[in-house]
Formats: sequence, C-alpha cells, structure tokens
Amino acid sequence: MEQKLIGWIEQHLKEHRFADDAPDSDLPPNVVLGVGDDGAILAARNLPQVLVADSIVDQVHFDLNVHDVSDIGHKAIAVNLSDVAAMGAVPESALVSLVLPRSFTFDKAQRLFSGITATADRFGAQVIGGDTCSHDGPLVINVSLTGRIPCDSNSPHGWRMAGARSGDLIVVSGPLGGSILGRHLKFEPRLQLASSLQKRIEIHAATDISDSLSTDLSHIIRKSNVGAELDCMKIPVSDAAHELSISSGETPLQHALHDGEDFELLLTMSESSFATLHDDPGFDNTLKAIGRVVDDHVGSILNAATFEKIVPSGYEHG
Amino acid sequence: MEQKLIGWIEQHLKEHRFADDAPDSDLPPNVVLGVGDDGAILAARNLPQVLVADSIVDQVHFDLNVHDVSDIGHKAIAVNLSDVAAMGAVPESALVSLVLPRSFTFDKAQRLFSGITATADRFGAQVIGGDTCSHDGPLVINVSLTGRIPCDSNSPHGWRMAGARSGDLIVVSGPLGGSILGRHLKFEPRLQLASSLQKRIEIHAATDISDSLSTDLSHIIRKSNVGAELDCMKIPVSDAAHELSISSGETPLQHALHDGEDFELLLTMSESSFATLHDDPGFDNTLKAIGRVVDDHVGSILNAATFEKIVPSGYEHG
Repeated sequence: MEQKLIGWIEQHLKEHRFADDAPDSDLPPNVVLGVGDDGAILAARNLPQVLVADSIVDQVHFDLNVHDVSDIGHKAIAVNLSDVAAMGAVPESALVSLVLPRSFTFDKAQRLFSGITATADRFGAQVIGGDTCSHDGPLVINVSLTGRIPCDSNSPHGWRMAGARSGDLIVVSGPLGGSILGRHLKFEPRLQLASSLQKRIEIHAATDISDSLSTDLSHIIRKSNVGAELDCMKIPVSDAAHELSISSGETPLQHALHDGEDFELLLTMSESSFATLHDDPGFDNTLKAIGRVVDDHVGSILNAATFEKIVPSGYEHG
Repeated sequence: MEQKLIGWIEQHLKEHRFADDAPDSDLPPNVVLGVGDDGAILAARNLPQVLVADSIVDQVHFDLNVHDVSDIGHKAIAVNLSDVAAMGAVPESALVSLVLPRSFTFDKAQRLFSGITATADRFGAQVIGGDTCSHDGPLVINVSLTGRIPCDSNSPHGWRMAGARSGDLIVVSGPLGGSILGRHLKFEPRLQLASSLQKRIEIHAATDISDSLSTDLSHIIRKSNVGAELDCMKIPVSDAAHELSISSGETPLQHALHDGEDFELLLTMSESSFATLHDDPGFDNTLKAIGRVVDDHVGSILNAATFEKIVPSGYEHG
C-alpha cells in the first residue's frame, strides 16, 4: 500500500503541476524541486519566513468512525493555515506526513490526501513533500507549513503574542463556542482577513483561538506583561454554543469563553486602528471588540462588569 | 502533562538560547522568533532552501520496550538530517511534533526531547517549534527540517536523484547491511562528508540509503533514465551484515544489497571527480566505488560479473 500510495501521490501532485519531473515553468515560482526526492527545494526569497507544524490524531482531534476523511484532511492543513494567518503571513509550502492504520484502504488514503490538497490549493499553498507509513495504531497526520510575511505589510516582522499594549482593544474575528458540534472540522482559516488587516492597520498582538478564548488570551497577556478586561456582553456567541448549552449544563457564554478549536483570530490593536476599519462593512461585520488591554493585574483576565477573575480553561489535547 | 511538558520545552530551549523571550542577539542569526508563538519566524536569506519531513513510529521504526528514549530522539531527527545531507545542504531549523502515549512519563518525554535537541545541536540545527499531544496509541515523532544549499557549493541547485549520467561511478559512503542489529538507531548522518564533497567536486545524483542499496539505487536510475551495473565484490559489507547472516539464511552481500536504514550516502559522480578525491585519505577511506551508470538496460541494475538482474527489494515500512 505504501509504495502504491506514494506513486499515486506523486501522480496526483504532478497533475496539480508540482511534481519534480514537470517542466520547471510549471512549478510555482518559489518551488525549485517538488515531491519525489529526499527533500524539496525552495528558491531564495528576500522575505521573512514563517514555519508552523501541527499533528492531528484519531480519537483526539477527530473520530474516524464518524467524520468524513476528506474533512479530516481539510482539518489537518487548516489548523496550520490558521497558525500562518495568526502570524500575519501568507502560506506557501506544505509537507504532509501520514501515519496510516493498517486497515486503511487505498481509497480512503486517496480521499484523505485529496482533502488536504484541495484546501491547500484553495488557500494558495503547495504540497511539496512529506512521507507515509502504516502501523497498528490510529491515524496520525502531521502537516508542516511555510509562509511569508508580505512586503506591503504594516507589521513586517509578523504578528506575535507578545506585543499587546495597555489601551489596546481586544478583538475577535467571529462567533465562538460549541465547535465540537461540527465547526472544528469545517472551519475556514482566516487568511483573507489577516491579509486585508496586514495592509490596513498595525496589529499589536495576535493568535488564533485553538485552546479557548480564555486560554489563548491568557497567553497573549502573559507574554505581553499586561492584564485584560473582557466585556462579556460583547463576546459573540455562536449558535452552536447555544445549542450545546441545552445539554451541557454550561451557559452559552461559558462555551464561548472556554471551548477550543474555533480557529478565529484573537487580536489586539489601538482604538484608532479599530476605528479606521469602521468605514469598511467587511470588517465591521466580522470583527468584534470584546474588551481592553490594561496595565494592572498583569497576567489576569477580569470580567469588566463584575471585576471577577476569568480563570483560563480549555480543552487540553491529551 | 501536555502544558507541563510545553513549559519545560520552552525553558529547555531558552537555556539553549533559542526561546522567543531571549534577547534577540542570543538567537541564531537566521532565527527571528523561536518557540512559544503560533509559529517561528526565520530571517530572509538569499540561498535556496531545502525542506524535509519524516515521522518515526513505535513498533515500526523503533521499539519503546527495548530502545532507549534518547536514542529514539536521536533517530527522529537524524533520519531528517540524513535527508538534508543527501540534498547537499546544511541543516538549519527543526519543528518537532510529539504524539505521546498516555502512559508516557514526564521524565521519558524530557529524555526523548533532550535526545532530539542534543543531536540537533551537534549538527548545527535549531529546534524552533512544533507541538505535542497525548493519546491512547503508540509514540509518533514527526520532525520537519529546513536546510540551505551553501553558497560555495559545486552544485548550487542541490543534489537530486535525477542527475546520474552514463559513465558515472556509483559510490557509497560506508559499509552496508544488518542495521537492524543496532545501527539504525545510532547512525551518524553524513553531513560533514556532504559538506566536504560540496566544496570539492560536482555530484551528479544523490540519495541516502534508507530503504536499501538496491531500492534507493533503482530510484536514482529510474529518475535519471539510465541503467546501473554493480561490481558486487566491491560493495562494502558491514560486520553486522556478517553477524546477521548467521541466523537469517541470507548472505552478507544480500543484507548489504537489500537491508534498509543504513543512512549512508549513495552518490554518482564522474570518474575524474572520484580520482580527485584520491589525494585525500579522508575520502579514500570513506567512499567506495561499487559500480557504474550505463545508458542501456534503463531502469535496471545488473550484477556486472554475471549480467543477472538485481531486483530491488528492501524493507517497506508498513
């Protein structure tokens, strides 16, 4: 199965024109050598490069008995695309490593890989290498992804967690909570939004909400040496959070605060930057200011209405 | 365990001076942002970049019941370093993704990660990111590695499988076979040799022997559209191949031809290039010419003495 799959992958990527024996002119301009050798080669480029990597595992990040393999493929690369978006970068090249259960059929492996490349293509990333093996264990998919900080960026050194400043607004890119009901497999990485923001304003700190709003915000404020006050009434709560609250015993707001895998952007920016975006209905409908960065109670998140601490919690994978 | 381990990893890497809150001057010159954010950032560099990725899995590539975890860590990164050597490149930055069994202790995870960083350090690579999770399954380690083709290289576009020319000598960098007896965990990636060769001569085709001499040579000749004749008497046979042959029912030569995971370099070069190296006892003791590239029987490997076909076979992982 392994050799047969590698042969198919090489053919599949060649049809996408990224294989090593396609004419050079058919390769994307930054790829000198694609899949099929010991490694891939990228051309020298005079832009800072972002590198991210994430593994997803059956029964931890998805359930092979329930979820469609092409959706699982989408998730495997989308979690990495979301990290690239959270760095204010544009994705370029992906390495895909598959550890397949021995019972996996060739057809399933094809649909999994096609799910990965379809999403890669849609967001302008090229699969240029990786490896594959089979074992007596669960499906594990690792994707590593490179990206570039665009030259016309307002933050030419990339977005980081450590730059939040007192007075910044805390902004999220969409409704939160209840992603376990399906969104965690289907989410769209916020690359287009990140790219538009890079051109328009300066972002002081950024991450994507993978663990939970409370946990990921706590990373930003700890690394930036500041505190945060959340206006909980302004946190956009997803329909899924409402639906889940019926059975979970938690409020919809608790789901929005503490659920993981929404993969929305969590940003801090000056009030004047946020005001700039108000002219544009695209941003106004998407971005919600939910609180403020402060210079006291460093490392803690307070509910701005009650001054009670919001204790970070979220799903720990494993 | 996951959060505790990530904290320890960040601290461990900071002590190795590659963490994000170390002063900028303490970071290696090409690393702008190290571990601890959504991704790492590398500075723009005007050199072609090599990208490789490989996963190793318990009960496929090692046995956690038998092998030392720090040796397993060594292997996880060394298989990737070997790929970088086989591209004629110098390693730079590594992303490490760990999928740990739930029974894994914190101490074991520390020794595993330390095994990875010790080997990375020794070969000039920096661990700059990755991720970690736990599950009800076997240990899986994925490493992705970037490298650069040096500017003083005789092959500025990197070494590839596809460049073998009729008349080239086929050369290996050391004795082969029987690596299952221990060498597959302890091998030294041939980076120093690759780097010396890059400065001295032009290499026409290259790979590392991961599947087997016969299989990896068949990749070179297929991609180069040539044939090969092996002088089997000249193939360097390891002591381990002799030892294994006592119990296996195979000859030592069969082990040298068909065993995997020796991670020696397999190269083709002109006869005059090989002669150049004869002045230097360092190369003379290491590199052995074992056959010749020919322009007939394309895609096949013949025994030069008997003109019988040598059928590629090797260990298929999974």
